[in-house]
Amino acid sequence: MSREELTKIILPEEKLPKFWYNVQADMPNPLAPGLNPKTLKPLTPSDLEPIFARELIMQEVSTERYIEIPEEVRELYKKYRPSPLYRARSLEKALDTPARIYYKYEGVSPVGSHKLNSALAQVYYNKKQGIKRITTETGAGQWGTALALACKLFGLEAMIYMVKVSYYQKPYRRSIMEVYGGRCVPSPSELTQSGRDVLAKNPDSPGTLAIAISEAVEEALKRDDTNYSLGSVLNHVCLHQTVIGQEVKMQLEMVDEYPDVVIGCCGGGSNFAGIAFPFIPDKLAGKKVRLVAVEPAACPTLTKGVFAYDYGDAAGLVPVTKMYTLGHNFTPSGIHAGGLRYHGESPLVSQLYHDGLLEAVAVKQNPTFEAALLFARHEGIVPAPESAHAVRVAVDEALRAKEEGVSRCIVFNLSGHGYLDLYSYDKYLAGETADIEFSDAELRESLKDLPQVPEEYR
Amino acid sequence: MSREELTKIILPEEKLPKFWYNVQADMPNPLAPGLNPKTLKPLTPSDLEPIFARELIMQEVSTERYIEIPEEVRELYKKYRPSPLYRARSLEKALDTPARIYYKYEGVSPVGSHKLNSALAQVYYNKKQGIKRITTETGAGQWGTALALACKLFGLEAMIYMVKVSYYQKPYRRSIMEVYGGRCVPSPSELTQSGRDVLAKNPDSPGTLAIAISEAVEEALKRDDTNYSLGSVLNHVCLHQTVIGQEVKMQLEMVDEYPDVVIGCCGGGSNFAGIAFPFIPDKLAGKKVRLVAVEPAACPTLTKGVFAYDYGDAAGLVPVTKMYTLGHNFTPSGIHAGGLRYHGESPLVSQLYHDGLLEAVAVKQNPTFEAALLFARHEGIVPAPESAHAVRVAVDEALRAKEEGVSRCIVFNLSGHGYLDLYSYDKYLAGETADIEFSDAELRESLKDLPQVPEEYR
Repeated sequence: MSREELTKIILPEEKLPKFWYNVQADMPNPLAPGLNPKTLKPLTPSDLEPIFARELIMQEVSTERYIEIPEEVRELYKKYRPSPLYRARSLEKALDTPARIYYKYEGVSPVGSHKLNSALAQVYYNKKQGIKRITTETGAGQWGTALALACKLFGLEAMIYMVKVSYYQKPYRRSIMEVYGGRCVPSPSELTQSGRDVLAKNPDSPGTLAIAISEAVEEALKRDDTNYSLGSVLNHVCLHQTVIGQEVKMQLEMVDEYPDVVIGCCGGGSNFAGIAFPFIPDKLAGKKVRLVAVEPAACPTLTKGVFAYDYGDAAGLVPVTKMYTLGHNFTPSGIHAGGLRYHGESPLVSQLYHDGLLEAVAVKQNPTFEAALLFARHEGIVPAPESAHAVRVAVDEALRAKEEGVSRCIVFNLSGHGYLDLYSYDKYLAGETADIEFSDAELRESLKDLPQVPEEYR
Repeated sequence: MSREELTKIILPEEKLPKFWYNVQADMPNPLAPGLNPKTLKPLTPSDLEPIFARELIMQEVSTERYIEIPEEVRELYKKYRPSPLYRARSLEKALDTPARIYYKYEGVSPVGSHKLNSALAQVYYNKKQGIKRITTETGAGQWGTALALACKLFGLEAMIYMVKVSYYQKPYRRSIMEVYGGRCVPSPSELTQSGRDVLAKNPDSPGTLAIAISEAVEEALKRDDTNYSLGSVLNHVCLHQTVIGQEVKMQLEMVDEYPDVVIGCCGGGSNFAGIAFPFIPDKLAGKKVRLVAVEPAACPTLTKGVFAYDYGDAAGLVPVTKMYTLGHNFTPSGIHAGGLRYHGESPLVSQLYHDGLLEAVAVKQNPTFEAALLFARHEGIVPAPESAHAVRVAVDEALRAKEEGVSRCIVFNLSGHGYLDLYSYDKYLAGETADIEFSDAELRESLKDLPQVPEEYR
């Protein structure tokens, strides 16, 4: 069928990528080295081995262009991959735009988001090395859900520290992790020293992602059979997500398309990296594709942050990396897109943005939900509040194309569905969603505590 | 790729069926006529016209074998159809069975279940006839969700009466209907005479499906621009669902399979009819395929009910039909599979069951959730509590194949996902799910009020 007839562009199972694409092979400027949070000296693999699987540490620093996807991981990818690329015909009609809008739908994963792409890979490498348990933290709950299922599929235990306020606000996120056999506890907990320390000072602490990270890392450090796992930010996580963009390229070719603009929401950066990085070689070769990261105006890391060395967590337990950051002491507002409330940014996305290969735009909550509702009412799928940020900018691009009277090919990553986030839609429909913006005064305050990194690494 | 390699069997978009299959063309014994609930005389089309679209009334009585799917409906089907047929490889391995298990996944529909297949068709015909609003009732919420989206896609208003106890137990079902622009009110309401009558007697009434039907029908009767819509039971609803089974047949052919057994859960009967009816002609031609309807032990309409004329609702507003029934005054237990709590059964499924072309089996709640959990932990997808009934019997069939040492092809309909039903899983994991069975004493009681139908129609 031709471009003008198809609604879904489906790749046959044998076209599932056999390799992840590693953008580190093609970057004009390499990453600045990660630093040990205690010594502020360059990290060595042995700094990371107590908590991460060796193969993941190697992927973290590899500059090989293609890294083979293990057969065991590919077999499990086939439960939901290749994921469909949709033509948003009803949305185009509603907007009366000459633009052709496509969206890659990662919500077909059984956990409802792209997060499983990395969870399966991470658990596989840990299992191969004899690890029996994995700890992690989760905020919005999507990563914890993916890790719980991946652990169950490979026969490992999953221990998930969920930020206490989210744990009680979103009880069904805990339920689904338990359906998958994972253990999910509210953080701060009595199970770790870090948790007990916080509770001693403040028994009513609602928790933060930073505290949950400390608890998960502490447990991984304490037990030989246990490693720690992270769902975004790190190089190997971005690497695993590149199956998304590689599939998109093949799917667009099937209908003779090449995108003018590729859009993804951006918190830690992994789903954006997943759809955007495979287009970097084309861009370096002179193609005019724009790659746009969308962040919330309440947490505008790329658009308002600084490119500097900073801690990845509040307690200073994880590596210090050079990235766009709002400062590790930045307390994000309680916006509904919990997955985008991170003070920092993937070092890979940061460097490529700094080098002008990526663009970024920040959007407010109400216009974001407005676009999500428009999308749901025409395309049917209810977007996750995070993914709704990409929808907003795709709609804006389509409206601009209409204004300018040009037909453009717009592609965005619908990284997950919102069927477990209907609480946020309720609030929006009730008019209770605020348009929070991050101020320059807040930024000055939150940047005060950047680490004093030796001159030679700056 | 061969049968032994594929995980998902995907039909190209151009293979989407162009016709619905009407089993009324092939039934060894035709349906007994529907009767007017007031006069107990055979229904005429004009009895139904105040609440149903004319083309749907014609489909209700048609004996044409194939009825063309309107192009506008097919275009919208393409948002999620053809739906995938999965090979349950991980589940097979977990059960160590020689059986080959396939499941048709209707949860890819944006509303998460098969219900959209009929909602789109029903709203289309109503729109064609100039209707502006549609009323309906919903119990578990899946039908209300599908109708809300279908109305939005065709530009009609949706008014959904949701059983009050479910409305408050499952607030996110209401949310999603509102995301799709539908109006959802708890029933009994102050908006109709039927609702006000109930509230006058019992201000704290938790509502029942029967009351909600009365409210929706009353409103449709009162307003010329408004029709009523039903999500199961009726012939035209079963007809619309036959896209499921037609696709399954093509998908199995692609991997050189023919099923030994086809399984679906069965409440009003539409999803079971959808997967099973397209196999009826084969069966009549001598093929040995078994077609198995699965119902809850708490509401065992086919396995314990009687084949007799009965009212479709408690108030006697909708047609009296000959069907398997537990009696219209039967009060179903509060089991978690809300979509299977109906006293009656599709007249088509009933007649074919009576004629020996279909089988039926009843299963209890705890073994059903046990199978659902096993499925989620190996296949990833969390089944809707209704669909979990089909999972249970598929697992039982696979275990029997193992016992007997034979390889069989088992196919079941995973009619929807359970991401909006995690409350039920919570209860099961907490050990709070009861194995309710329907007793013979209850049956004798609930069959007391069957209508006294004239001899000639019995």
